[in-house]
Amino acid sequence: MTAFYQRFAQAITTHNSLLCVGLDPDINKLPTPLQHHPDAVYQFCADIINATSDVVAAFKPNIAFFEAMGVTGIEILTRLTALARQNFWILDAKRGDIGNTAAAYASAAFTHYACDAVTVNPYLGGDAMEPFLADADHGAFLLCRTSNPGSRDIQELILHDGRPLYMAVAQLAATQWNSKRNVGLVVGATQPAALAAVRAACPELPFLIPGIGAQGGDLAQALDAALDTHRAGVLINVSRSVLYASNGTDYARAARTEACRTNDAINAIRARH
Amino acid sequence: MTAFYQRFAQAITTHNSLLCVGLDPDINKLPTPLQHHPDAVYQFCADIINATSDVVAAFKPNIAFFEAMGVTGIEILTRLTALARQNFWILDAKRGDIGNTAAAYASAAFTHYACDAVTVNPYLGGDAMEPFLADADHGAFLLCRTSNPGSRDIQELILHDGRPLYMAVAQLAATQWNSKRNVGLVVGATQPAALAAVRAACPELPFLIPGIGAQGGDLAQALDAALDTHRAGVLINVSRSVLYASNGTDYARAARTEACRTNDAINAIRARH
Repeated sequence: MTAFYQRFAQAITTHNSLLCVGLDPDINKLPTPLQHHPDAVYQFCADIINATSDVVAAFKPNIAFFEAMGVTGIEILTRLTALARQNFWILDAKRGDIGNTAAAYASAAFTHYACDAVTVNPYLGGDAMEPFLADADHGAFLLCRTSNPGSRDIQELILHDGRPLYMAVAQLAATQWNSKRNVGLVVGATQPAALAAVRAACPELPFLIPGIGAQGGDLAQALDAALDTHRAGVLINVSRSVLYASNGTDYARAARTEACRTNDAINAIRARH
Repeated sequence: MTAFYQRFAQAITTHNSLLCVGLDPDINKLPTPLQHHPDAVYQFCADIINATSDVVAAFKPNIAFFEAMGVTGIEILTRLTALARQNFWILDAKRGDIGNTAAAYASAAFTHYACDAVTVNPYLGGDAMEPFLADADHGAFLLCRTSNPGSRDIQELILHDGRPLYMAVAQLAATQWNSKRNVGLVVGATQPAALAAVRAACPELPFLIPGIGAQGGDLAQALDAALDTHRAGVLINVSRSVLYASNGTDYARAARTEACRTNDAINAIRARH
């Protein structure tokens, strides 16, 4: 096992958790006590991280929410990733660009934000991914089958050999792009059949699974389809249900309670496998 | 003609230019006189903009290069886009994400950076593009057939009906995603046959064409394939040849000379049509 897959597996084992908390701070949804706080977004995210870091495997800051705040947001994100402890950090950026630009993005993700992995869009092809996969300590989760309704527009187009496009992405990921063993896939929970098909094609790849909760994905169906032979190999992402579990002064405690509840539900399903 | 297409066409007419200067500031390539300047990247980009703005239609800052500088880079980009005059500004970000995240990206591109358009990756489908296409004053250039060698990995996969994937993207762009008439396409110069096929399918869409110069695309072949019936409808992007035309104190003048030379070459080809 290389460094990347090892750290991914260790984050799961250490916390006995497949949970990933997405950090999507929406300034309009912050708990009431923080609404006039001078450093509200940082304080909110830091409180969530500190309240949940021992019961989750990973954090996934979504850079779009920080970019939308301009310079301030980027500065906040830099301070937050410095809070990393034993967790796995995935920068959700869905990058994809050619050579030197991809290298600049990789530098931002791995150097400025010190993340373990970044989400990458495969549409530009293998050379666009190389900078994200160049060292075996860092890696990329490639978008394969996303959880949004519009994912069918492109990802489900049927190829001449009968495969949907997302299966071609999965198979390229497993066979051509994973020479350093640092490739993972983003596969949404909203299509369990797609999850099962991708798992069958890629038995060893880590999956990042969004779409549980607000988007309608079913936890048990997703896990039944996606768990690897070690009852692991996946991260279940949750965002709003944990971040906004309470609107009051107990928001951090409520986030922890919700994270524990989800983690227990996940582990009960794992135990059946 | 809606506001977006009108402003695109006006930027071309006003400057009698199809040229777009890509702002990809590489700190290791800055002209020697700027290497110890305290605000070198801003000064360099501002000098290039001021030296060329009357002979180019558009500027295309590539946000990756600014993000790689951390907070400082984002602040520089904010100051640069404030220099916009009569030019069309495209934020090269190749974004693609689901609903509320795409909305956050669109807010960053159109509000913080005050750009006219943003480049968007179509892999996530129509709902991921909606925030970029929600108002007719702003728009998106969707990645269709990019100029990098790896573009063949995914974009040229053949669909069950015989079309390559990029043609499906082009046809969705023209028929389903363009209700506000603010969609354009990114089609690389490195494959003139693909350019011609996409133009045939999308006679009215603006094209942003990278890949001339260092990447090997031929200017005349690209224009012959892509010009619309008004001998316009395209932006030819150049970056390194203009930005790094000289390494000495005359870098801004040299950039202008190179931009004028390229623009004259483009207009000579247009005149033959």
